[in-house]
Amino acid sequence: MRRITVLSGGMGGARFLKGLLHGIREGTLPGVAGDAEVTVVANTADDIWVHGLKVCPDLDTVMYTLGDGIDPERGWGRRDESWSVKDELAAYGVEPTWFGLGDRDVATHLVRTQMLDAGYPLSQVTEALCRRWLSPRFGTALRLLPMTDDRVETHVAVRDPDLSRSPSGRRVVHFQEYWIKLRAAVPAEAVVVVGLDEATPGPGVIDAITDADLVVLPPSNPVVSVGTILGVPRVREAVTATAAPVVGLSPIIGGTHVRGMAEQLLTSIGVEVSAAGVGLHYGARSAGGVLDAWLVDSQDAGDLDRLHETGLAAAAVPLLMTDDAATAAMAGAAIRLVT
Amino acid sequence: MRRITVLSGGMGGARFLKGLLHGIREGTLPGVAGDAEVTVVANTADDIWVHGLKVCPDLDTVMYTLGDGIDPERGWGRRDESWSVKDELAAYGVEPTWFGLGDRDVATHLVRTQMLDAGYPLSQVTEALCRRWLSPRFGTALRLLPMTDDRVETHVAVRDPDLSRSPSGRRVVHFQEYWIKLRAAVPAEAVVVVGLDEATPGPGVIDAITDADLVVLPPSNPVVSVGTILGVPRVREAVTATAAPVVGLSPIIGGTHVRGMAEQLLTSIGVEVSAAGVGLHYGARSAGGVLDAWLVDSQDAGDLDRLHETGLAAAAVPLLMTDDAATAAMAGAAIRLVT
Repeated sequence: MRRITVLSGGMGGARFLKGLLHGIREGTLPGVAGDAEVTVVANTADDIWVHGLKVCPDLDTVMYTLGDGIDPERGWGRRDESWSVKDELAAYGVEPTWFGLGDRDVATHLVRTQMLDAGYPLSQVTEALCRRWLSPRFGTALRLLPMTDDRVETHVAVRDPDLSRSPSGRRVVHFQEYWIKLRAAVPAEAVVVVGLDEATPGPGVIDAITDADLVVLPPSNPVVSVGTILGVPRVREAVTATAAPVVGLSPIIGGTHVRGMAEQLLTSIGVEVSAAGVGLHYGARSAGGVLDAWLVDSQDAGDLDRLHETGLAAAAVPLLMTDDAATAAMAGAAIRLVT
Repeated sequence: MRRITVLSGGMGGARFLKGLLHGIREGTLPGVAGDAEVTVVANTADDIWVHGLKVCPDLDTVMYTLGDGIDPERGWGRRDESWSVKDELAAYGVEPTWFGLGDRDVATHLVRTQMLDAGYPLSQVTEALCRRWLSPRFGTALRLLPMTDDRVETHVAVRDPDLSRSPSGRRVVHFQEYWIKLRAAVPAEAVVVVGLDEATPGPGVIDAITDADLVVLPPSNPVVSVGTILGVPRVREAVTATAAPVVGLSPIIGGTHVRGMAEQLLTSIGVEVSAAGVGLHYGARSAGGVLDAWLVDSQDAGDLDRLHETGLAAAAVPLLMTDDAATAAMAGAAIRLVT
């Protein structure tokens, strides 16, 4: 197989992609050509306008991670980052103060914002930014596509006991506020993705799924990352219809997420927080879902029977992305499930 | 006298203002009340949009200098500045790379740009920014007013021998490009202030001149700082008509500027580069000009006769702004000329 398309969120997706590309380079992926081309369809629903800047956390996390500009400890933002802009904005007393706007990172947002203001769609802006980060390293073997050029924003309805502020006992906040400011520590009652139903898939997105030899759902958040990508009109249909096998890797290990807030958000949409729960939520293509196969962690081997029953190919292997080789082995195991 | 209005550019004007405020605080200025109020009408014609940010060099230099945020060595931008944003923009290959956009400084421009985008006029934006820098220090004793809320931009026509780029042998560049990128080292043939004729004085500007007890032209650039302020429709008329005395201090000492590019620009508009030349360029109010008095440096004492002949009060004192006390002494000498 030569054309691999990955529907990715931020941190989990980016680490998976790094391992996948490592596996391609090292030739350790079964049946995958050495000149395989990877297309990343990235979530843009957690994008946010902050201090007049357009910030695309998932696009940037993928771009910085694969372009070797990421801070490896935090897993987001730039390596060797400084925070003068953020501190100074706080000194002016302007909100929000909780968003992690690093100085190096600001340059990316300035270039993006200025291009958007000049009328370029996000897909072309992303291509321009990737000319610095990805092209010198991967040439045409790696493309990063926003799921849509339209403005789509995930909001979360949270319980708010402060009735003076929220007479309904409920408040709707941007996903970033829920995640960063509230640390996903308040009960999430619903996820509302503003603009999703009216969005158009970004240029190349549908073709990348339709023409793929393999489609992968990496261990990204099933609700606010992969879920929103699949929610863009025509994307889910393209995944169910593609001739390529579709394989996913569970972001839930031993009943919880490794990093992030998938547990809270799965609960809010009524999905069982388990490897099987997420696999069944995506569902087998033979039963109207999007998956042919679902890879779970070794400690969730007990979930395999339930998955097999619904017509999914499934296996259990170690799923911790400790380094590129381990991640490439995960990718290899996923590919083996559908070949 | 209680109400002092100063028509200021950036560095020279800001240093003068710092000394003036020092003199008020120390009670060393003849006839000036301890609770005197200073209104600064600042040049905005060298403002520039850069990387999508609205930068107002003169407003910021005055604000940072008086608010103790300035870099004292450079005389512009923030103290303890870092340059990550600038370096990263250059790494993306976006122009201009020559503009000095410091990380701390960027926050000011982000706040300003976002407020302008939200529809606030520059005067209100400036007031908001000054709430951090000036209000805590000076209360209502100091106001900073942009000369206009309208977009006005100084451009310079420079000789360009590269005929492949400039078939006319001439090129028109933004003032900042002339000053920072070209270092004022190419012949300037004309100064064109785009938008000046259609500009409206900013809120409070005309009243600040009309109701003043003293109007001061500090040693700022006579062409691209004080010259553009006076060029805003109704401002020159207000200066010629005010009941307050108008006194200026020469930015030319011993036949050249102390810092900046006044010499080149005076030459380009056909004004003699001397203390007398600039004084006569402004002219005596009794003869249709804007000045009652003109203070020159001791080494330009030979210019006094020519100034007196045109009806100007004039004197020669040391004009180097080496520290606040020396600058306050200059201000005192200027005031003595008109009282």
